[in-house]
Amino acid sequence: MKSISRANCPIRRTTDILSDQWSFLIVREFFLEGRKRRFQDLQTELGLSPNTLSNRLKRLEHSGILERRQYSDHPPRAEYHLTAKGEKLGPVMQALYDWGMQYPDTGQASEND
Amino acid sequence: MKSISRANCPIRRTTDILSDQWSFLIVREFFLEGRKRRFQDLQTELGLSPNTLSNRLKRLEHSGILERRQYSDHPPRAEYHLTAKGEKLGPVMQALYDWGMQYPDTGQASEND
Repeated sequence: MKSISRANCPIRRTTDILSDQWSFLIVREFFLEGRKRRFQDLQTELGLSPNTLSNRLKRLEHSGILERRQYSDHPPRAEYHLTAKGEKLGPVMQALYDWGMQYPDTGQASEND
Repeated sequence: MKSISRANCPIRRTTDILSDQWSFLIVREFFLEGRKRRFQDLQTELGLSPNTLSNRLKRLEHSGILERRQYSDHPPRAEYHLTAKGEKLGPVMQALYDWGMQYPDTGQASEND
């Protein structure tokens, strides 16, 4: 990792997409709950506003991490699938998890189960 | 990772601290450039405003990832050291790096070297 140039740095590129906590937590849901999730389920699980969730999902879809599939036309409802590219974020999720497990008193646990 | 409860989820706690791209990129500097960095160096490397940098550094210091040491009183100047707890973020940085390396066309590379 020491020889990276900051121009085109892979860590920067990855965090361009996973650019805030919601993006990480949305991706987390696919690893915790299964590789396809409905918009409504994600909203309930994360307690996010529809606009914020929609914005982050579009970004993850645009980056090829999630794929959107409409499963009902009336009313229009979509589910999101983790792609092969998204699946490869497993080690990122695992590393975030492992660090958090080592330091249980770090960060706020304000999310409800 | 499958049995995590969302209450007190380790991924949530880790991303409570590394809550935006700047936090990841600040930590990255310590892995790229050495375990101690001066405020001025970080500012130059990242092109961040002093206020934003100061805010993120305080958060990382408060979380025990960085330690602040003043090396000059007149004028007051500080350097930051990566702690043992911060050092343990190595696998997170590596996983972000590895994913970015696999997908070179993902994310924007707008940072100058």
